[in-house]
Amino acid sequence: MKLGKIIGNVVSTQKIKSFDGVKLLLVQPLDENLNSAGDAIVAFDAVQAGVGDIIYYETSREASRVLETTMNPCDAAVMAIVDHVNLK
Amino acid sequence: MKLGKIIGNVVSTQKIKSFDGVKLLLVQPLDENLNSAGDAIVAFDAVQAGVGDIIYYETSREASRVLETTMNPCDAAVMAIVDHVNLK
Amino acid sequence: MKLGKIIGNVVSTQKIKSFDGVKLLLVQPLDENLNSAGDAIVAFDAVQAGVGDIIYYETSREASRVLETTMNPCDAAVMAIVDHVNLK
Amino acid sequence: MKLGKIIGNVVSTQKIKSFDGVKLLLVQPLDENLNSAGDAIVAFDAVQAGVGDIIYYETSREASRVLETTMNPCDAAVMAIVDHVNLK
Amino acid sequence: MKLGKIIGNVVSTQKIKSFDGVKLLLVQPLDENLNSAGDAIVAFDAVQAGVGDIIYYETSREASRVLETTMNPCDAAVMAIVDHVNLK
Repeated sequence: MKLGKIIGNVVSTQKIKSFDGVKLLLVQPLDENLNSAGDAIVAFDAVQAGVGDIIYYETSREASRVLETTMNPCDAAVMAIVDHVNLK
Repeated sequence: MKLGKIIGNVVSTQKIKSFDGVKLLLVQPLDENLNSAGDAIVAFDAVQAGVGDIIYYETSREASRVLETTMNPCDAAVMAIVDHVNLK
Repeated sequence: MKLGKIIGNVVSTQKIKSFDGVKLLLVQPLDENLNSAGDAIVAFDAVQAGVGDIIYYETSREASRVLETTMNPCDAAVMAIVDHVNLK
Repeated sequence: MKLGKIIGNVVSTQKIKSFDGVKLLLVQPLDENLNSAGDAIVAFDAVQAGVGDIIYYETSREASRVLETTMNPCDAAVMAIVDHVNLK
Repeated sequence: MKLGKIIGNVVSTQKIKSFDGVKLLLVQPLDENLNSAGDAIVAFDAVQAGVGDIIYYETSREASRVLETTMNPCDAAVMAIVDHVNLK
């Protein structure tokens, strides 16, 4: 998983059927110091995250498991809202 | 998923059988400000996207699920045409 | 697998259900000379690793196999604590 | 999928059994203007491609589906020879 | 697959159970001219490779298929020792 920050969302009318009603967030990847690292990605929301939240997200097949329809072709999902990053 | 823009298409006669009749688009990856980010990829079209459209696409195994033949060895697909990117 | 070093951990209350009770480590990727290489990732702990330990970790689907619930959407796990890296 | 060019091949005697008799090509990744982009990879040939051909190839699990033995641990394959890249 | 060179090995006592008795090599990725390209990775050995050997290796799920226990969470494996790289 990687750390990220919710920076917005993506709205789409013309899309594959299994994405109907699914909330898509724009996620800015972060490094361990919570600085931006790379380009934003588009991810499903599994934890009711909002703009400004620090989260961790997943990519690859595992991401589709957080949706009710497990055959959904999802490849990125927000898994948790982060309370603290303890960097030692 | 990642944001992208349709910038063309790829024509191929000699190909694996399961790709017959499938439309292949050339997709320029974009960052959250819709600036180019990295090299173009070749992706299946699941939503009738056209040149100039802002879209989001997927890579990895999930992409093959948007095709009728789920055993199709597809590793990139355009999933939706984007109406708005709300960057906050 | 890649070499890494445990540099901290991530605490999260609001998360997907299958992550309850799972310890999440912050891992700094390392090169073969044990210098930092890239941004830290968040990984499950399969070997009771602690801060400062040199480890190797996995990403992609394989990582989920180290958890008891194999359907867990985990995409990164610490697999072993490294005793020696023999560079010849 | 990504665009590439066949720039050579790889010969190997000592290899895993399921790779016996399989032709392995050296593929130079290309960008949308057909300029080199990154380091060459080693890929299976599913379409009788030859040196100098512009092709597109796949990586990840999907690649193994082009081989007769679907359990073959192949992670890169040439899927088609490209006739035209229409960049608009 | 990618070209690489065996540059050492990794020794580990505290590890996940399914890795007991498995030889882990340190692999330096190479480009098509056999120059170093990126950071070393840790890979299983499926072909009795030794330090100094030019090889090609795989990452992703396919790598686990070269082990006897196919459910082994392995994500990188050396598949063959390379005799010649014919670059044309």
